[in-house]
Amino acid sequence: MKLPKLTLVGAGPGDPDLITIKGVKALMSADVVLYDALVDSSLLQYAPDALHVPVGKRAGKSSVSQQTINQLIVEHALTNGHVVRLKGGDPFVFGRGMEEMAHARQFGIETEVVVGVSSIMLPGLYGVPLTQRGVNQSFTVVTATGADGRLTSELKAAARDAPTALIFMGLRKIQRIVAEYQFNNRGTLPVAVISNGSLLNEKVITGTVNTIADELSGSGVEAPALLVFGEGAACYSSENMMNIQKEAVA
Amino acid sequence: MKLPKLTLVGAGPGDPDLITIKGVKALMSADVVLYDALVDSSLLQYAPDALHVPVGKRAGKSSVSQQTINQLIVEHALTNGHVVRLKGGDPFVFGRGMEEMAHARQFGIETEVVVGVSSIMLPGLYGVPLTQRGVNQSFTVVTATGADGRLTSELKAAARDAPTALIFMGLRKIQRIVAEYQFNNRGTLPVAVISNGSLLNEKVITGTVNTIADELSGSGVEAPALLVFGEGAACYSSENMMNIQKEAVA
Repeated sequence: MKLPKLTLVGAGPGDPDLITIKGVKALMSADVVLYDALVDSSLLQYAPDALHVPVGKRAGKSSVSQQTINQLIVEHALTNGHVVRLKGGDPFVFGRGMEEMAHARQFGIETEVVVGVSSIMLPGLYGVPLTQRGVNQSFTVVTATGADGRLTSELKAAARDAPTALIFMGLRKIQRIVAEYQFNNRGTLPVAVISNGSLLNEKVITGTVNTIADELSGSGVEAPALLVFGEGAACYSSENMMNIQKEAVA
Repeated sequence: MKLPKLTLVGAGPGDPDLITIKGVKALMSADVVLYDALVDSSLLQYAPDALHVPVGKRAGKSSVSQQTINQLIVEHALTNGHVVRLKGGDPFVFGRGMEEMAHARQFGIETEVVVGVSSIMLPGLYGVPLTQRGVNQSFTVVTATGADGRLTSELKAAARDAPTALIFMGLRKIQRIVAEYQFNNRGTLPVAVISNGSLLNEKVITGTVNTIADELSGSGVEAPALLVFGEGAACYSSENMMNIQKEAVA
């Protein structure tokens, strides 16, 4: 009988090579891997003999409920041993990592965390700084909408005075977010929208608060996307984009 | 003659296994590694034949200037080929990654970025969530002091109304930060201080705005430390600490 254990592993923001060495080691000792839809399935190669269980959740599509995921974690740990829960980005930035851990502990299951590269880091890939000396010394990370689908009070606060805001889950609400910024007379603030960051189908659209909705329409950008509202968005450079590098090599 | 190239690599927040696979691959193709003081020197094993150049900067100690680092990058790239600039955490979160890249490009040097696990992710290791459903949907990342050593206006703004603030470079200014929060009637807000997070000598001190300075005095906690001001700090659990795990194994 194997010791039941849960390891939460952040798989990184997209590119499968952005998983950590520690995450790979956890996968190598896994008996079961429960993985999100956003996770690159090539990562499962590190756990060839483990049971692979997709528990994907994607915005707008029905899928495995959080309650079911919690139950699957416990059942597999008690039956099969070491469960690796592989989550996109980092397990704790707007992930439900904490809830999954707390649930497992109620059943006496040992838990471990392997932090990962969050999508928060993606702007750096495209030359978009979150802070700049002499410009801003802070940034705010915020979800656009709550469980009720309405704009969060924190989004409204960021639109009012956050020098730089990284907005998750905001693409479908772009017009309402823009309206909040315009209401606060910030129409000329630079904006960058990063879709599929670090992946081959990456796309970055830039503009200002006043223009970004037009720029996005017809651009083919799909959720999930990260929105950057701040002066740093004006620094965008395509120089680091994966496709450009590929072309240079080809 | 090798092609001059600069790759900025985020080494992660401390634990050398928190570097990414992509970061390891960059090291394996390096001709020169310029590394920070905060980077675990065991990472140099991935570049055994490269030239290893320490360019450490530590708070309060004189060391290699940013200008000299910029020059070293260019000189080594033009002379030796592929320079990997290995930086603690992520290269762009309060790092000078963007400046180093811009400087190298002025000399026609190709640049690449490998994003890393930022210290921002460390609270998750200790059961401290940055966001919680029904509590807060945003967090703010801020440096406590500017180049002039004074509290930043962004720190003051966070003390006023940020639900959760992650404060960098704040340990030595803890009393002034506490005073800002108290001035805004937030004396009972939970606080956690994470020092050497993810390393064997990790230390976490918790309290509230009103008590944290006392808790810290005589605790032996040293810079660099990450301060978390927010409700999530009350969730701190030692269950994931590396030392605890080591004892359980021993």
